[in-house]
Amino acid sequence: MLDPKVVSLAQAANFAALTTLLPDGQPQTHVMWVDADDEHVLINTELHRQKARNVQRDPRVSVAIIDAANPYDFVEVRGTVVEVVRGPVARAHIDALALKYTGKPYAPAITSERVILRIAVSRTVLR
Amino acid sequence: MLDPKVVSLAQAANFAALTTLLPDGQPQTHVMWVDADDEHVLINTELHRQKARNVQRDPRVSVAIIDAANPYDFVEVRGTVVEVVRGPVARAHIDALALKYTGKPYAPAITSERVILRIAVSRTVLR
Repeated sequence: MLDPKVVSLAQAANFAALTTLLPDGQPQTHVMWVDADDEHVLINTELHRQKARNVQRDPRVSVAIIDAANPYDFVEVRGTVVEVVRGPVARAHIDALALKYTGKPYAPAITSERVILRIAVSRTVLR
Repeated sequence: MLDPKVVSLAQAANFAALTTLLPDGQPQTHVMWVDADDEHVLINTELHRQKARNVQRDPRVSVAIIDAANPYDFVEVRGTVVEVVRGPVARAHIDALALKYTGKPYAPAITSERVILRIAVSRTVLR
């Protein structure tokens, strides 16, 4: 089970810095939307993105979730992507995220394939 | 020379997600103050911190600098720590950063050794 603070920060409209590893091990970081259920941190991206390719080769990631009201208040989780969810579930999830962050569904004109990166957390650092 | 947008975001009172690599290559991310001169991104930390130890073993880092006024507007730089600056220069730099972020000098009671991580950028990603 995730730490309740991770869940609450991830379920609110806060941004996260997701880091994945390039083929040579160099870290790559992207600031993006985030979500969580009780067990996993969830990141929604597109199948063709470098970060999605990275985690299929090396599933190790870090996610820093930053309280939008106070950037000194952040959590870091380290872990691995244990599942890449594709299909209608991933599309429905980006619509839900768009509602959370923008109040509107995700742009219907964007039809690239979405994926959910389901992240199992091995280490949580609370600040 | 750094991209002017990197310099302007780093010199304003924005926060950055610094990622370093743990001994096994797992990424570790910390949200913190940031600075830049015309050539390097600058991170001030303490000598005993895991992130400072990490970069002495593997200097590869990523830094995502997030516009506090608009988190969709961020830059990512990837590069390597080319110098670890110690001594009075590093202490003066944390005082300057504290003034930028809090309006006050850094707490005099905190006497742990400060270091500046001087980061040479090999790749800049503007959003």
